[in-house]
Amino acid sequence: MKFGIVARRDKEEALKLAYRVYDFLKVSGYEVVVDSETYENFPHFKKEDVIPLEDFDVDFIIAIGGDGTILRIEHKTKKDIPILSINMGTLGFLTEVEPPETFFAINRLLEGDYYIDERIKLRTYINGENKVPDALNEVAILTGVPGKIIHLRYYIDGGLADEVRADGLVVSTPTGSTGYAMSAGGPFVDPRLDTIIIVPLLPLPRTSVPMIVPGNSTVDVRLVTDREIVMAIDGQYYEYLPPDVEIRIKKSPRKTKFVRFTKEIYPKYTMRIKERH
Amino acid sequence: MKFGIVARRDKEEALKLAYRVYDFLKVSGYEVVVDSETYENFPHFKKEDVIPLEDFDVDFIIAIGGDGTILRIEHKTKKDIPILSINMGTLGFLTEVEPPETFFAINRLLEGDYYIDERIKLRTYINGENKVPDALNEVAILTGVPGKIIHLRYYIDGGLADEVRADGLVVSTPTGSTGYAMSAGGPFVDPRLDTIIIVPLLPLPRTSVPMIVPGNSTVDVRLVTDREIVMAIDGQYYEYLPPDVEIRIKKSPRKTKFVRFTKEIYPKYTMRIKERH
Amino acid sequence: MKFGIVARRDKEEALKLAYRVYDFLKVSGYEVVVDSETYENFPHFKKEDVIPLEDFDVDFIIAIGGDGTILRIEHKTKKDIPILSINMGTLGFLTEVEPPETFFAINRLLEGDYYIDERIKLRTYINGENKVPDALNEVAILTGVPGKIIHLRYYIDGGLADEVRADGLVVSTPTGSTGYAMSAGGPFVDPRLDTIIIVPLLPLPRTSVPMIVPGNSTVDVRLVTDREIVMAIDGQYYEYLPPDVEIRIKKSPRKTKFVRFTKEIYPKYTMRIKERH
Amino acid sequence: MKFGIVARRDKEEALKLAYRVYDFLKVSGYEVVVDSETYENFPHFKKEDVIPLEDFDVDFIIAIGGDGTILRIEHKTKKDIPILSINMGTLGFLTEVEPPETFFAINRLLEGDYYIDERIKLRTYINGENKVPDALNEVAILTGVPGKIIHLRYYIDGGLADEVRADGLVVSTPTGSTGYAMSAGGPFVDPRLDTIIIVPLLPLPRTSVPMIVPGNSTVDVRLVTDREIVMAIDGQYYEYLPPDVEIRIKKSPRKTKFVRFTKEIYPKYTMRIKERH
Repeated sequence: MKFGIVARRDKEEALKLAYRVYDFLKVSGYEVVVDSETYENFPHFKKEDVIPLEDFDVDFIIAIGGDGTILRIEHKTKKDIPILSINMGTLGFLTEVEPPETFFAINRLLEGDYYIDERIKLRTYINGENKVPDALNEVAILTGVPGKIIHLRYYIDGGLADEVRADGLVVSTPTGSTGYAMSAGGPFVDPRLDTIIIVPLLPLPRTSVPMIVPGNSTVDVRLVTDREIVMAIDGQYYEYLPPDVEIRIKKSPRKTKFVRFTKEIYPKYTMRIKERH
Repeated sequence: MKFGIVARRDKEEALKLAYRVYDFLKVSGYEVVVDSETYENFPHFKKEDVIPLEDFDVDFIIAIGGDGTILRIEHKTKKDIPILSINMGTLGFLTEVEPPETFFAINRLLEGDYYIDERIKLRTYINGENKVPDALNEVAILTGVPGKIIHLRYYIDGGLADEVRADGLVVSTPTGSTGYAMSAGGPFVDPRLDTIIIVPLLPLPRTSVPMIVPGNSTVDVRLVTDREIVMAIDGQYYEYLPPDVEIRIKKSPRKTKFVRFTKEIYPKYTMRIKERH
Repeated sequence: MKFGIVARRDKEEALKLAYRVYDFLKVSGYEVVVDSETYENFPHFKKEDVIPLEDFDVDFIIAIGGDGTILRIEHKTKKDIPILSINMGTLGFLTEVEPPETFFAINRLLEGDYYIDERIKLRTYINGENKVPDALNEVAILTGVPGKIIHLRYYIDGGLADEVRADGLVVSTPTGSTGYAMSAGGPFVDPRLDTIIIVPLLPLPRTSVPMIVPGNSTVDVRLVTDREIVMAIDGQYYEYLPPDVEIRIKKSPRKTKFVRFTKEIYPKYTMRIKERH
Repeated sequence: MKFGIVARRDKEEALKLAYRVYDFLKVSGYEVVVDSETYENFPHFKKEDVIPLEDFDVDFIIAIGGDGTILRIEHKTKKDIPILSINMGTLGFLTEVEPPETFFAINRLLEGDYYIDERIKLRTYINGENKVPDALNEVAILTGVPGKIIHLRYYIDGGLADEVRADGLVVSTPTGSTGYAMSAGGPFVDPRLDTIIIVPLLPLPRTSVPMIVPGNSTVDVRLVTDREIVMAIDGQYYEYLPPDVEIRIKKSPRKTKFVRFTKEIYPKYTMRIKERH
């Protein structure tokens, strides 16, 4: 088995734990690579084991950080590598293991006592081409001029679903339903469901409602007004786009894979929604 | 092919159209039965063709009325008989055909040029027993004392999903997502999805959100406070229940089957949400 | 100075503290009366000092309990007697003093080191007559049939303000804005404002919004549908009414007066909103 | 009496009507000035009557346009000149008269058969200084990075009112309550009320609610996070500000004055809320 190590770059505790995990796996005889950005912030790893995230070709990634670290992995890696995630963030909707249980969890992984939790992602086509990262959480289409609403139409499989004036539109996976989509009034969607969630941001008319559609739907978005927009993917990747852009969002052929030790969803997820408040 | 006829009882126009459909099908040589309550309100059908809805054993039901007529059929028939529904109601989320197209639609049905749209229903077990009708729209668990909130917990597959003080709790099918669940802040859920929607009514804490869970989930509801509740199924069937009742809601083995001539969902459904306002 | 004592009837701790306050004031030479219901639950007070709340004619009431105790005083007393409220409830939006500070607070009161916080109340006229208690929090007009919405119109100073189908309508004081009105989506309204808050409960159309109108407005409510309703005043007083009833709600000539030691509103009130969740 | 004329610059119909009003008043012997920007778009007015809006010193302004035209007048004029507003916009919450009634309305004005509807405005102090226009509708404090929330605290008269992570914060007049504040979940506030409305935009925690505070309150806003913000006043004036800025918002000493012919508020305003949808 071959492992990749990625840590949150701005937290020494996370970088140190990453090094301990690296050392443990090396000593145990496994092949291990370390992400270059992690190395830059903690230059104690052997230089020969350091490669860019983009080139990771391992059996498992051990991620030590928060949801941001996982999103960075997801946006950069080219293969659907299962991630074992140690929580060094604040909230941890995506992470599985608390720091004190790190080595206990790695042992379970080595013994094969785990399961893979696959999550759908969304792929965005801008004027027919996909050049932006897949979204694990959401694609947000926002006004490019803060305080000025945009007027847009969205279509499901070619049929007009709604037309709104709004601060923007969030197209989310079930994984992302606890994020931006929920702030905008969307529901919690069980991560096991193969669905896409569409939530307008502060829409007029107020009769517009969040929509839950099948995972294999094609969502098309068109701007009616002549105003620049910003596309934000997972709150990490930003791109300004002209008003005549054609945006298509579909389920990606890629998945995110998490190493999990429990299939429990309730009350785990619903508790975290409360804790955030 | 054998047909059953059911009409809205309080609208002469619907009863007259029902008679014309009955007459047309009889003249065309088909076997036709008429629901007793329809007959009571329009005693021109041949008495020998009249039987209670509960005894309908036909290939298709022609329903002339609104959503209420369909819910009456669903609550009374014992088989999953496909329904061709002519809209004589106000809104018509469930109905397929407007009155002027009645005979055109019946011809398409006779020629086999249609498809069957299957919808899930919810079955309710009270203290382990199912004696109440299946819900096509929703099961609402409401305070029995208007103005006094109830304190309840709900569980998904045995795991605590949430605990709220609220006016009540709505457990809905995708079909019901445009009804009571939507008034309470729930999303529109595509009717093709196999999911259950759970929406608390005016909950405290306000951090409680609508939830979308897999269709094969078991939803258990328990009351914490010592206050009588009312269960309302599809806004048609009511039952008062003591606070120590154990309520379990699951997908029913039965389905509702609609005769449809188009698979279009957008903008049909989303337009109707707007029209209501 | 003459005092009246009222305690929460179901909490021995409150009844005992009430007795200590009674004893302290008697020993200090003040005239003190005790509410009959308090006496019934704690028969240690001198019988000759016991009178019904309805007959209280004192300078101050010392209330030991929660918001429910204050509402009971407000619904029964016939004069606008200032209330010093000791919190023996759970939340305490209306109460001023925590139990350990009871005697410290009474001393400040005796020394004249306090101010009076006046709150508006709402008076309800049913078919032109006022026979129901004034509301310190809210008048809720609710469906009499749980799960069946009511169709109603409301008017401000004779002009149609809105027409909705809803679970009901809440007409609230600023004091009540943190209660039922807030669950239904209403804002926090500063208790110093002379306004009336109108909030429909889960309305259709969803375009209906909470309204804040001047305190001297006349609010008229009329039912469109033929369904019995329930009027709930402060969640304490209930009355079933026929659908053709004429309901008028106006600011009462009476006020509720609280003895306060601080004019602080922020963060006191907004913190309590959070604590509740 | 002296009049000023201002028209919507992008609508020929409005410019032509403005010219007819100008001509009518001149012929009737009144002194009339025309705003320079109106002239630039319709150069038929006498050059000698043209002056900048900033220099208007007249008894009444006749505004022909929509809410945008009124906001432009309000942001530029230096005196509180009563405005008679002819609706050439789409919605017209602020405008009083439809185009066909223009001359009828002007006659009523000349005859003194009108009343003045005074509206409060909000003044913003940035680091202690007021250099931005007063808001007739609202001051919006928004994230400067679309899709990235801001973390802020707001204070009423020095007391902490709330702390939220949100897309922004809207501080609104009653006049603005039907605008951005309403999209964000705020109530309709009767324009006669002397209050300030504070509405967080998509806040976390969701327990944060809109607030209605007295008109003479001082609202202070402080950023917790290190992120640039944008201040948008009435959706017309924009300014980027650093995260350590100190923002204070208070009622302005200035008022907006509208010429009205009816004191009717209901159903006029509530109908317009519906029409927008």
